[in-house]
Amino acid sequence: MTKKHFIIAALALAPGAVAAQGVETATLAQGVSDEVVWILNTLLFLIGGFLVFFMAAGFAMLEAGLVRSKNVAMQLTKNVGLFSLAAIAYWAIGYNLMYPLGEWAVDGWFSGLFPAAGVLEGVGVSLADADDPGYASTGSDFFFQLMFCAATASIVSGALAERIKLWPFLAFVVVLTGFIYPLQASWKWGGGWLDALGFQDFAGSTVVHSVGGWAALAGALVLGPRLGKYAGGRVNPMPGSNLALATLGMFILWLGWFGFNGGSQLAMGSAGDVADVSRIFANTNMAASAGAVAALVLTQAMYGKVDLTMVLNGALAGLVSITAEPLAPTLFGALWIGAVGGVIVVLAVPMLDRFKIDDVVGAIPVHLLAGIWGTLVVAVHTRAAILGPDGEETGEVASLGAQLATQAIGIAAVGAFVFAVSLVLWLVLKAVAGIRVSEEAEASGLDTAELGMEAYPEFARG
Amino acid sequence: MTKKHFIIAALALAPGAVAAQGVETATLAQGVSDEVVWILNTLLFLIGGFLVFFMAAGFAMLEAGLVRSKNVAMQLTKNVGLFSLAAIAYWAIGYNLMYPLGEWAVDGWFSGLFPAAGVLEGVGVSLADADDPGYASTGSDFFFQLMFCAATASIVSGALAERIKLWPFLAFVVVLTGFIYPLQASWKWGGGWLDALGFQDFAGSTVVHSVGGWAALAGALVLGPRLGKYAGGRVNPMPGSNLALATLGMFILWLGWFGFNGGSQLAMGSAGDVADVSRIFANTNMAASAGAVAALVLTQAMYGKVDLTMVLNGALAGLVSITAEPLAPTLFGALWIGAVGGVIVVLAVPMLDRFKIDDVVGAIPVHLLAGIWGTLVVAVHTRAAILGPDGEETGEVASLGAQLATQAIGIAAVGAFVFAVSLVLWLVLKAVAGIRVSEEAEASGLDTAELGMEAYPEFARG
Amino acid sequence: MTKKHFIIAALALAPGAVAAQGVETATLAQGVSDEVVWILNTLLFLIGGFLVFFMAAGFAMLEAGLVRSKNVAMQLTKNVGLFSLAAIAYWAIGYNLMYPLGEWAVDGWFSGLFPAAGVLEGVGVSLADADDPGYASTGSDFFFQLMFCAATASIVSGALAERIKLWPFLAFVVVLTGFIYPLQASWKWGGGWLDALGFQDFAGSTVVHSVGGWAALAGALVLGPRLGKYAGGRVNPMPGSNLALATLGMFILWLGWFGFNGGSQLAMGSAGDVADVSRIFANTNMAASAGAVAALVLTQAMYGKVDLTMVLNGALAGLVSITAEPLAPTLFGALWIGAVGGVIVVLAVPMLDRFKIDDVVGAIPVHLLAGIWGTLVVAVHTRAAILGPDGEETGEVASLGAQLATQAIGIAAVGAFVFAVSLVLWLVLKAVAGIRVSEEAEASGLDTAELGMEAYPEFARG
Repeated sequence: MTKKHFIIAALALAPGAVAAQGVETATLAQGVSDEVVWILNTLLFLIGGFLVFFMAAGFAMLEAGLVRSKNVAMQLTKNVGLFSLAAIAYWAIGYNLMYPLGEWAVDGWFSGLFPAAGVLEGVGVSLADADDPGYASTGSDFFFQLMFCAATASIVSGALAERIKLWPFLAFVVVLTGFIYPLQASWKWGGGWLDALGFQDFAGSTVVHSVGGWAALAGALVLGPRLGKYAGGRVNPMPGSNLALATLGMFILWLGWFGFNGGSQLAMGSAGDVADVSRIFANTNMAASAGAVAALVLTQAMYGKVDLTMVLNGALAGLVSITAEPLAPTLFGALWIGAVGGVIVVLAVPMLDRFKIDDVVGAIPVHLLAGIWGTLVVAVHTRAAILGPDGEETGEVASLGAQLATQAIGIAAVGAFVFAVSLVLWLVLKAVAGIRVSEEAEASGLDTAELGMEAYPEFARG
Repeated sequence: MTKKHFIIAALALAPGAVAAQGVETATLAQGVSDEVVWILNTLLFLIGGFLVFFMAAGFAMLEAGLVRSKNVAMQLTKNVGLFSLAAIAYWAIGYNLMYPLGEWAVDGWFSGLFPAAGVLEGVGVSLADADDPGYASTGSDFFFQLMFCAATASIVSGALAERIKLWPFLAFVVVLTGFIYPLQASWKWGGGWLDALGFQDFAGSTVVHSVGGWAALAGALVLGPRLGKYAGGRVNPMPGSNLALATLGMFILWLGWFGFNGGSQLAMGSAGDVADVSRIFANTNMAASAGAVAALVLTQAMYGKVDLTMVLNGALAGLVSITAEPLAPTLFGALWIGAVGGVIVVLAVPMLDRFKIDDVVGAIPVHLLAGIWGTLVVAVHTRAAILGPDGEETGEVASLGAQLATQAIGIAAVGAFVFAVSLVLWLVLKAVAGIRVSEEAEASGLDTAELGMEAYPEFARG
Repeated sequence: MTKKHFIIAALALAPGAVAAQGVETATLAQGVSDEVVWILNTLLFLIGGFLVFFMAAGFAMLEAGLVRSKNVAMQLTKNVGLFSLAAIAYWAIGYNLMYPLGEWAVDGWFSGLFPAAGVLEGVGVSLADADDPGYASTGSDFFFQLMFCAATASIVSGALAERIKLWPFLAFVVVLTGFIYPLQASWKWGGGWLDALGFQDFAGSTVVHSVGGWAALAGALVLGPRLGKYAGGRVNPMPGSNLALATLGMFILWLGWFGFNGGSQLAMGSAGDVADVSRIFANTNMAASAGAVAALVLTQAMYGKVDLTMVLNGALAGLVSITAEPLAPTLFGALWIGAVGGVIVVLAVPMLDRFKIDDVVGAIPVHLLAGIWGTLVVAVHTRAAILGPDGEETGEVASLGAQLATQAIGIAAVGAFVFAVSLVLWLVLKAVAGIRVSEEAEASGLDTAELGMEAYPEFARG
């Protein structure tokens, strides 16, 4: 079917067109009108957006389940607080900082501040008056993008759990979601220099997940490990208090990831786009499954026993791994990409412990390391990614090596920027306000010490 | 594509425009066919409906988390039971009572009874045979409206927890969802006198949330506080047993609220409608975030410590506050409307305690007080709400004062009706069957006393 | 708008109709273009698919809540593992085994193996190049169908909880999802002999739920009851450790069921299809509600106390009951079909105990017995099911008796096949590897004995 064919067909759809013009040559009522395309694209953002929103609950449950019961209420507070502050900071500053940066104008820097009237289209806007008639409603795009920004902050909270103070953490979140995330995101998704370079990151293995991971790593280094974690020269296990909650959190994240990756197709108004979203859903599910199975098998092989928390993180690592390119791979491709993600987690968790980097929930292996893996492996699929719908080359196809180099540049640039700025920010926060609770508070638990309440006040500790 | 281009295309879409004007230059297949509009509107109700359905789980988890462990199984039973009975009562009586009331015919009163064959369109209905070809499938509308009715009942269960008997509570639910809710809802949403008066309540700050709140308030007054709650002239805290569950419940409610408010646009078949749904999603999220942040900051300022349960209720109060008008405000408007909601909750919870009104989960501050606030503040946005898509005045624009008065009339009328009928009903139930468990049962917990089972039989009480 | 008007409009939409017939009188662009139909059908699978995916979390929470705390981590591990393995097995073998079987060609048997490149359409496929331009994206169909297969496996894990070994269970899952489920599913949904016979099973009361139930029953017989369950000639209650989680699981399953039944309409691209999906949503909700209310009332009547776990299973049984035909019944029909499902569960649970069949979560009453009931009662609605949109007979209408016989044949054939193969497989697994943990492991709990970790390590046992 040619493009021309569709234009003719579209013509035939105009109400009255047939009668008015006596067209006798229109042969197929194929195609989708511009307005329906716009509606469907917007709907994709709305559905994708509420699914990714729900990931906030997923992170909260995962983290609440993996910390000890004396810190659960605090972890929950942090998760609700970080999402809420991210929603405000991204609106007030981040969103406009992220997108107009392509022009590097002064406007690009400052238009972002309190764009109360600017972000949303007017009530009952017509397609003609819409900000971008060929794309989707700005409100839906804002809603969708916001959720990615908030997810980045959620990643950080898990790694630094059980010892960081509430308000310094929330202060970090405001800077992360208002400035750090949007700035680097503009490099790729705002049409910035990484995008121009050919860097590929479909839904954010690097732009979202590794950013959260780098910020968490910087925080973990400045903060230091939990009391007693590495006491006596050993790695002392501090098992999570509620694995049912942690599993629920993992499933919610998995669910949300269909919106995360599927919505990143950014369009659903044509057969090709919705078929691509379908590919993405199927691949995303496969990568998660493969990551879980890899961790299941590997922990059994290595330790003689399956480790549920590794299986949960294996599924998540599979999801992070496929996020940089969930469209191009076949299902078999998604399987091995996800499986390697699961292997990475199982191997990396003890490695971090060897460096005495205390990451309470495994966020750094899952989001940073699997994020790097997923971003690199895109190079393997880059040919498919650049090939057009009909198999023609729609752009210059990079060689495997060249694309690998481009991917590495993106990973390194984002990593260097986020890690450096985060490190400085954590150090400033430490100097100014202190970021760690007292030893007494840590020992007795942040819930009673900092909040004066407990998550499970009636359940006796065994 | 130019703006003008679109305007021409839009012109061509006006029904009959082409034929009437003899336009021969229409060049673009803009617009959406009637059938696609109908499909998309229906789809909005289905998606919105399943999201609001899930709020039943949200209420159940929130309440199960905020009661003491000895009453958790009972609270869960009430939540499953109330939803299920609401589904039957609203079908058997409520739905038809709510909508045909505009005619105040005898039919309007009695057609509602057991409309087994009447509610749903036939299998495989054609657009021409649909009940309302310009709206959406009746089945989807029924499904969507039912969820609102059930949500009203869910609000009541939390306030009266830990002391009310199961069956009298469920009897109240049947009357609430079969009669009380639909009758007052018909005043606004059934095209009744409040609607004619110009009362604005987009998604139900008054029609749903305050109704649940008034019914709960009446119940709390008749039922009295929990044993020992105000013993010794003090307010004795009775902390919830599982704040992780409560937080999960809050997140599920937040998620469901996208359907609650977004679905209340009632249409998604045009660019304007789907852009409005997008605005609503973004505003709803902002109001929730602002409510949470307000409670976070205010509890820190007032008590020197953040109170997680207040933060959860702050988010919910933000959601209730924006529900009366989630479309017209800008994001900044949503922010301050939601933030005030959060403040209301933090201030009102101790105030209720001063009056010895024992509301276990804070349902009255969240749903009644923030619902009143949200309904009143609509007056500020009323101009925008009445302006049409192209900015023209589509109706008489009320002055701020006049609209405030109208909003107050609606709040008062609904409040007086629901409170009075609920009060009588609670008193009748008390006289006939007793609504409160025995002191022994309350002390030992409703789970073992009334159900003979425990929610957490193996977790020792600390 | 008259009916005739629409018919003319629809004519104009038939591909090629305009050109072929030279119609100049078509006046309205009603209807939906082929591409929009395809997009909407695909969207239904995507939404339905993610909802059914979430049922994996529902099963996990339901089962984690209904087992004792010493076995929770294992139950969670099994649920994550079974879903992940099902996703791989169904892709590698099951999917292609299920659908091409109509031809019974060698290809039909072997094309299924590792169809890495075969399942998904290419990136950015055009409608013309899609596998089935009149249906939906293959990727979305695969995604949707996979979730049904995985749900079948989830049913088994609950019944066999607290005593089965992890790896033999997972081995069974691979065979179930790779071979057993797809083979019998092909009889009905792959256009096989049961379909040709006129067997009706809209969304899988038999094809999914009874299959899980038969496999579970075979497993329970081979495995035997839990230690002490029937010691001393009595039925010793072993209450679930967390009824809040169990209730959450039930609500998630109920939510997912809208996708399960609604998505099984397989189309959403016309008024008739989306209205049917609406009917299905409303009926599904009604059947669940009725099942819950039936169990609520019946346990009160029989035991003088409401049993929450029965209410949860009553809702689920209502859902299973309506699954074989959620479209044809009226809402009143859905009510009594679901209510009978709830009654079946309340009566069957003690009956199974009388036969010393130890089904930990009640999966056999819910999925097998209510599944049989739902499949049989389809016969009552068969006339409606076969009647077309305008009431005309679209096929030969079977008599009640003939349809009942056909339904019984389907139930029996599927049951015999699945039970027999499962029984053999369980016996082989028992002989080869042993399927039951040691008595010591069972007594101390599978979590510490098999996994070396606990779900709630800090909560003391009461």
